[in-house]
Amino acid sequence: MEKCTVIFKPSNKSISVTKGTNLLEAARKAGVFIDAPCGGKGRCGKCRVKIISGDYKEEITSLLTSEDRQKGIRLACLTFVEGDMIVEVEESKQVQNILVEGIKPGDEKNERVLKASKLLEEEGIKKECGVFNIDIELPEPSIDDNVADFERLKRELKVKYNIENFFCSLNVLKNMPKILRENNFKVRATFLKGKNGCELIRIKARNKETSTYGICVDIGTTTVAVNLIDLESNKIIAAASSGNLQMQYGGDVISRIIYASTEGGLEKIKSAVVDGTINRLIDELVKKANIEKQDIIISTFAGNTTMTHLFLGVEPAYIRVEPYIPAFRECPELKAKDIGIDINPEAKVIVIPNVASYVGGDIVSGVLATGIWKEEKNVLFMDLGTNGEIVFGNKDLMLTCACSAGPAFEGGEISCGMRAMPGAIDEISIDRKTLEPKIRVIGNVKPKGICGSGLIDLLAEMFLSGIINSKGEISKELESDRIRFDEDLYVMEYVVVWGKETADGRDITINEIDISNFLKAKGAVYSGSNVLLKSVGFSMDDVDKVIIAGGIGQNLHIENAIMIGLLPDIDRSKFSYIGNSSLLGAYLCLLYEQARDKVKEIADAMTYVELSVYPSYMDEFISACFLPHTDMNLFPSVMSLLNQK
Amino acid sequence: MEKCTVIFKPSNKSISVTKGTNLLEAARKAGVFIDAPCGGKGRCGKCRVKIISGDYKEEITSLLTSEDRQKGIRLACLTFVEGDMIVEVEESKQVQNILVEGIKPGDEKNERVLKASKLLEEEGIKKECGVFNIDIELPEPSIDDNVADFERLKRELKVKYNIENFFCSLNVLKNMPKILRENNFKVRATFLKGKNGCELIRIKARNKETSTYGICVDIGTTTVAVNLIDLESNKIIAAASSGNLQMQYGGDVISRIIYASTEGGLEKIKSAVVDGTINRLIDELVKKANIEKQDIIISTFAGNTTMTHLFLGVEPAYIRVEPYIPAFRECPELKAKDIGIDINPEAKVIVIPNVASYVGGDIVSGVLATGIWKEEKNVLFMDLGTNGEIVFGNKDLMLTCACSAGPAFEGGEISCGMRAMPGAIDEISIDRKTLEPKIRVIGNVKPKGICGSGLIDLLAEMFLSGIINSKGEISKELESDRIRFDEDLYVMEYVVVWGKETADGRDITINEIDISNFLKAKGAVYSGSNVLLKSVGFSMDDVDKVIIAGGIGQNLHIENAIMIGLLPDIDRSKFSYIGNSSLLGAYLCLLYEQARDKVKEIADAMTYVELSVYPSYMDEFISACFLPHTDMNLFPSVMSLLNQK
Ligand code: FES
Ligand SMILES: [Mg+2]
Ligand SMILES: [Mg+2]
Repeated sequence: MEKCTVIFKPSNKSISVTKGTNLLEAARKAGVFIDAPCGGKGRCGKCRVKIISGDYKEEITSLLTSEDRQKGIRLACLTFVEGDMIVEVEESKQVQNILVEGIKPGDEKNERVLKASKLLEEEGIKKECGVFNIDIELPEPSIDDNVADFERLKRELKVKYNIENFFCSLNVLKNMPKILRENNFKVRATFLKGKNGCELIRIKARNKETSTYGICVDIGTTTVAVNLIDLESNKIIAAASSGNLQMQYGGDVISRIIYASTEGGLEKIKSAVVDGTINRLIDELVKKANIEKQDIIISTFAGNTTMTHLFLGVEPAYIRVEPYIPAFRECPELKAKDIGIDINPEAKVIVIPNVASYVGGDIVSGVLATGIWKEEKNVLFMDLGTNGEIVFGNKDLMLTCACSAGPAFEGGEISCGMRAMPGAIDEISIDRKTLEPKIRVIGNVKPKGICGSGLIDLLAEMFLSGIINSKGEISKELESDRIRFDEDLYVMEYVVVWGKETADGRDITINEIDISNFLKAKGAVYSGSNVLLKSVGFSMDDVDKVIIAGGIGQNLHIENAIMIGLLPDIDRSKFSYIGNSSLLGAYLCLLYEQARDKVKEIADAMTYVELSVYPSYMDEFISACFLPHTDMNLFPSVMSLLNQK
Repeated sequence: MEKCTVIFKPSNKSISVTKGTNLLEAARKAGVFIDAPCGGKGRCGKCRVKIISGDYKEEITSLLTSEDRQKGIRLACLTFVEGDMIVEVEESKQVQNILVEGIKPGDEKNERVLKASKLLEEEGIKKECGVFNIDIELPEPSIDDNVADFERLKRELKVKYNIENFFCSLNVLKNMPKILRENNFKVRATFLKGKNGCELIRIKARNKETSTYGICVDIGTTTVAVNLIDLESNKIIAAASSGNLQMQYGGDVISRIIYASTEGGLEKIKSAVVDGTINRLIDELVKKANIEKQDIIISTFAGNTTMTHLFLGVEPAYIRVEPYIPAFRECPELKAKDIGIDINPEAKVIVIPNVASYVGGDIVSGVLATGIWKEEKNVLFMDLGTNGEIVFGNKDLMLTCACSAGPAFEGGEISCGMRAMPGAIDEISIDRKTLEPKIRVIGNVKPKGICGSGLIDLLAEMFLSGIINSKGEISKELESDRIRFDEDLYVMEYVVVWGKETADGRDITINEIDISNFLKAKGAVYSGSNVLLKSVGFSMDDVDKVIIAGGIGQNLHIENAIMIGLLPDIDRSKFSYIGNSSLLGAYLCLLYEQARDKVKEIADAMTYVELSVYPSYMDEFISACFLPHTDMNLFPSVMSLLNQK
């Protein structure tokens, strides 16, 4: 088979592939990141690359303009290598720069973190992570006392500290003779407590710098966030986040499960998150904090069910086929070396348990952090990230469901959509008369697209200013050069920013397809919540608190979210935003050993409701895809606002 | 630095090295085995290679004849690469063909094995290896019963078999979804019992072929022997053995410890035994038995202290420096993946504990197999392999020591010496009148050298026929063309086989240096035993049983061994030969779970005696280096035989 070489600019990474290979696949093989939300199906139009030279074949697409084509822009997933090529890729800028609202150094004193910690402490749970250090001095060996090093250590630990029957890993044993002698037999022994006794995880020189560290990780479908914590001072000493490199295999969990089922796919997609994402973030953390990886000895991970499967390399195939069965809910306690996490190889790995195929450890972690498990009142908890997961309940009952909202809240499947990162428009208002928009852009840069909170604002404002009707159709009557017909896609569109003001010179527009996609996403969340409540005989009026979490971001305007029918039209004071509750729960599990049992109890206590089998769900969904809803009685304040006009 | 390429024949393995590199080191790097008993110090003369072409420098040596040199023979360790070279090596034939008297298929009914098993069973120890299988059928998942695979398995195991809180390794979890569905949720679950509960180690189709296997391994300094056991039928189904590939780094433990202290040396020497030796033998076993490696789930290993350190990659440096401290006596229970043993990665690894730096798990294993730990009578146990280790005692007291006997009993450090393998002379008698020898050769081949038992015969016969005196000096008076003076080495020698009858056409001879080396070896063993006995106020007369084990082999003539003063001159009926007792003990630890505790008790109960600090040891040793001894009263039957003449 004929081989061709593809060189990717600007990294100059190159790869030799057989003629006919898909260009996106070639990039994946070369370790070049190309965002591919639709998983390479030619649907999302995000895998744009610029062909500098070389022969290729291509499939036709309406996602490129003739101007694009003239510039050499192609969709990587629809391009096939036919000869040696040079291709330019805006590599991984997207991945690495994604802003993740997480927990930052110093945030141990932040109100949200303090509140979540207090929830545990009120229950008598102590801030103890299960690590303890013993500073010990051994008598030096002699011909008369020629006990082996390890037995010498055991003897002293037993006599002086009453510690016995601990496990010692081979890695610790390997260097024990050198470490003991380099330190004149005065060392600090670090132990990890476990279900079946203690483990000696490190022996090291006794000095001030010898601290121990832990990391807590939120493995999101789109973004991964990690915090580094000093386990002695309990301080957050560094934070890092980036996109999940698995994005090159698809934006949603389904595309990734499909990719995992290809030859070698599971290994590659596992490596994308472990080596390509988490280990890189760990590199970043240890550099920032100037510590040694070996000293990171506990790690906690929260992710949705598919993410935890892929992270561990566990077969995910049956998550996506009826009856939707994950391989595990609770995974055994593992070590970093089992997975390839680049910290102390013997470090404890705690994966927060899942509930079901579409409600994972990230939600359980969120429930821990929000305190629903101990709440007397009725809480509606909504995690609006790449999908949308809902929990409703209190200390006596917790119901949960997953809405297939897709990635719209993070800008996915929307032509002008993007994640909350520099260049994203995150706030929009529209002048009711001139129909001219006013925007706010993240970072001091020209706008590139619109993120979740911006899209919510945009839809609400378009609706209230009459640009769209309750079906999301753009009015053909209004006089504005911003409202126009897209000849290629054969739909109406509204120009949010003119090309002369944007980063790439292209107009930022939203069209009726985008609007329809976003309405489906918000409809899925609202109807999901409603059905979940109804399934136990409740309605939105019974909700005492609404807690919102996830990538939709801090800048979400509750009022606008109600206006479009994403959030229920209830007393505004009931709403609060908790940020990345998945990461917050992982943080708690790192610092509070007993929290690791608590998340198991929570996962056990949560009842998963499969929306698709609920008889009225489809009708509810369709009704919720309108602005704000077909049943306006559910949205009294929207109704009164519209009536005012 | 200039690079040169060295090609090794006949394997054609090649390596690029910097100019000036030692040829032995180049071979090691290329993965070409060259025996190097002296560790590359130019002393043993065993690293002979043939230079076919190329530039090199060399150090002078008296170990090559001018004839050798003309043929292009050089010592690899004294040769330095100066240009591209082609070198011929009798690669690894030596290693792979070494005959190890071990345990063979069917030997579970062999008397020695039965006897050792009975010793345990008499104590109420059951033949239970700690593996159990559960054939289980899970209800197939549905929307109404959508519990995850792992939790489904746990639920059924708890309800039907009352098994809970078991550990499940990630490897098992990874493929659980596929295996369950491929077998319609009817599977066999295999568990390993452990100190802290059970571990699910495998799930597999339920069929007749689904057995589980274990291996027991004797890691000798010179040879490695492995048996494969079916853990259901308890049958020995295959055996394999070879030389320890670490021989390329030196014949004795000291050279290996020194090599391990070089840059990257520990990793290389670990790999030589794990990858180069044990994993190759496992390949051989699974091919012979036609089973899958994944189904080998327990492994037991017995080796001397240095071997166990190197096998695990644990720093051995302090074994060889005063006060001679090993890193560990008892190593924690490990898994195959921790070490890189190529069986089921989660397989249990049991390393038989050591006593001290020079009395290791091989001896403890031997003590288990011989039953000294429960013996009323006084047993002298001698393991005569590469070194010589002695145990004396009974159920109340066990003393042990190591003699620095070196490798002479396996033919090492003797010019005509070789291991017991095809071509080795293993029996010799000498006509008292003609001084002509009669020999027996192992295998149907021409003789190549003399192994341990042959050397003992040879010395005894030379002594009794007056060729050597009690100092080991060869008589200059006797009339025989077999007795001659070696002009190169300036010593007398005796020709055992004329060149025309040998494999390589060179005379097989023994000279005074060889004899002196052998006398030192036997002197070390005898004096060691004697000092050990004396240290508790006993003498050879108090010995009720002598059990001999190790590489010296089955063909050892007790009478001759007494004649030369290696074994004590006591009632012949007290002697027995147990073979490879290290392997036998490892076999017992594989099949009898409780034996794994027993060896720990044994190692604890054994008192190590450091001969070198014993005041009279040096005198004892010198006296024992005579034939049979300076104190003839210790050897009454030898005295009367000599008086008869
Ligand atoms: S003489 Fe070369 S290894 Fe011994
Ligand atoms: Mg999330
Ligand atoms: Mg041995």
